[in-house]
Amino acid sequence: MNISLKQAEAVIAAAKAKATEIKTLMNIAVVDAGTNLVAFAHMDDAWLGSIDISQKKARTARYFNMPTGEIGKLSQPGGSLYNIEHSNGGLITFPGGVVIKNAKGEIIGAIGVSGDTVENDHIVAQAGADSIK
Amino acid sequence: MNISLKQAEAVIAAAKAKATEIKTLMNIAVVDAGTNLVAFAHMDDAWLGSIDISQKKARTARYFNMPTGEIGKLSQPGGSLYNIEHSNGGLITFPGGVVIKNAKGEIIGAIGVSGDTVENDHIVAQAGADSIK
Amino acid sequence: MNISLKQAEAVIAAAKAKATEIKTLMNIAVVDAGTNLVAFAHMDDAWLGSIDISQKKARTARYFNMPTGEIGKLSQPGGSLYNIEHSNGGLITFPGGVVIKNAKGEIIGAIGVSGDTVENDHIVAQAGADSIK
Amino acid sequence: MNISLKQAEAVIAAAKAKATEIKTLMNIAVVDAGTNLVAFAHMDDAWLGSIDISQKKARTARYFNMPTGEIGKLSQPGGSLYNIEHSNGGLITFPGGVVIKNAKGEIIGAIGVSGDTVENDHIVAQAGADSIK
Repeated sequence: MNISLKQAEAVIAAAKAKATEIKTLMNIAVVDAGTNLVAFAHMDDAWLGSIDISQKKARTARYFNMPTGEIGKLSQPGGSLYNIEHSNGGLITFPGGVVIKNAKGEIIGAIGVSGDTVENDHIVAQAGADSIK
Repeated sequence: MNISLKQAEAVIAAAKAKATEIKTLMNIAVVDAGTNLVAFAHMDDAWLGSIDISQKKARTARYFNMPTGEIGKLSQPGGSLYNIEHSNGGLITFPGGVVIKNAKGEIIGAIGVSGDTVENDHIVAQAGADSIK
Repeated sequence: MNISLKQAEAVIAAAKAKATEIKTLMNIAVVDAGTNLVAFAHMDDAWLGSIDISQKKARTARYFNMPTGEIGKLSQPGGSLYNIEHSNGGLITFPGGVVIKNAKGEIIGAIGVSGDTVENDHIVAQAGADSIK
Repeated sequence: MNISLKQAEAVIAAAKAKATEIKTLMNIAVVDAGTNLVAFAHMDDAWLGSIDISQKKARTARYFNMPTGEIGKLSQPGGSLYNIEHSNGGLITFPGGVVIKNAKGEIIGAIGVSGDTVENDHIVAQAGADSIK
């Protein structure tokens, strides 16, 4: 199963609403189950450097089927996945990327959000992912 | 002046409507005046290879402030811009990318469309750009 | 629908059998519907440069859902897709890549073959793809 | 001496059997003595991000003729090979890559495995390498 554009747009709308609610500006990327970009939105005046980061977060979450921050815990110096970020053309392993599941619990894609603290990035990403039921 | 997300979403909506009208499936990218990605949409079942091409077309149009097809005329063997496609991480110089201007005629961004013949790609891109007045 | 490893291995076995039958040495790559590598085989003494080419052919065929040679007809100087090869991290647009369909006619992946003339590359790729029913 | 495709396929079969035995899903790559890819298998539903990592592990093991985890001990902050991962288009220096030797003890290639904990990745890689006598 792959996320549809209609679903991806709903995910982005939900993420934008959450970003507005918590008064922040985000870049929001949605990829499909094959890690291909489906939809993207850069909120006005959000960080330009986060355009790429949001896409890398979305891909990283789907690459390993877990929130990006979980990978970051293992990729620290001395950790079991130290410097995994050098793979796949560049990973981002701090919070802000989560997989998107459908009502059956199947992974259909992932969302990556970047533009603020990683805590806020994650909150907005989760709000986007949770909008798919 | 830079295109806003609201404007970019209107451009994508207009391009999607035109794509649906002419019965085709497109990838549609909008970049700002600084060539940074603002919004993107991959219509269900559109070519996966056109995700990258649509973004490269949008950037190419803004890089040189002209429709991508105009650059392609000059990048042919023997032409004055032969193989310019090697620059900027890869240009796409066939039709489907056009700049977006505001009501004052200022360039505020560009749209790139890919997914069908270059003639149809250009038609859909122009429809998107023309939606901004 | 995505190709399974079992199916991909059957595709490679069929391609290798065809390569042996026509007395040539090939590199054979199979990607899934999302263009991710599923299986690969480098026949002993086959060209080393074709390891990458076979993978790029498989991806190119799936990117545009057509045999790679069809794209190459359009990407020539003066053609409508001139220099499309600069996209997607590098395309290969001469023959040797074809999509793989299941019994229902759904595209589930693609095969790319490289190691000999493009005619032979295509013959071997087609034999691989045809092994899936 | 270089690993043959027949040997590489035996290595992958042994690695797959070990992965199945310990109930995990792996990506398995085999490179030759020149670090060129010889064979690859992505088990159904294994992590997509590990397709690249398994290949990088195989290359890294052969680049330095030691298990990848040994290099990772030296590439930590303050270590003698700090950030060596930046070389060769990206190394992976945590466990899961080991060299493959023939009966005479000559290095004929390497295997890289990725898809689970690095401990399990290494177990599966070693099982693959040990299948060559």
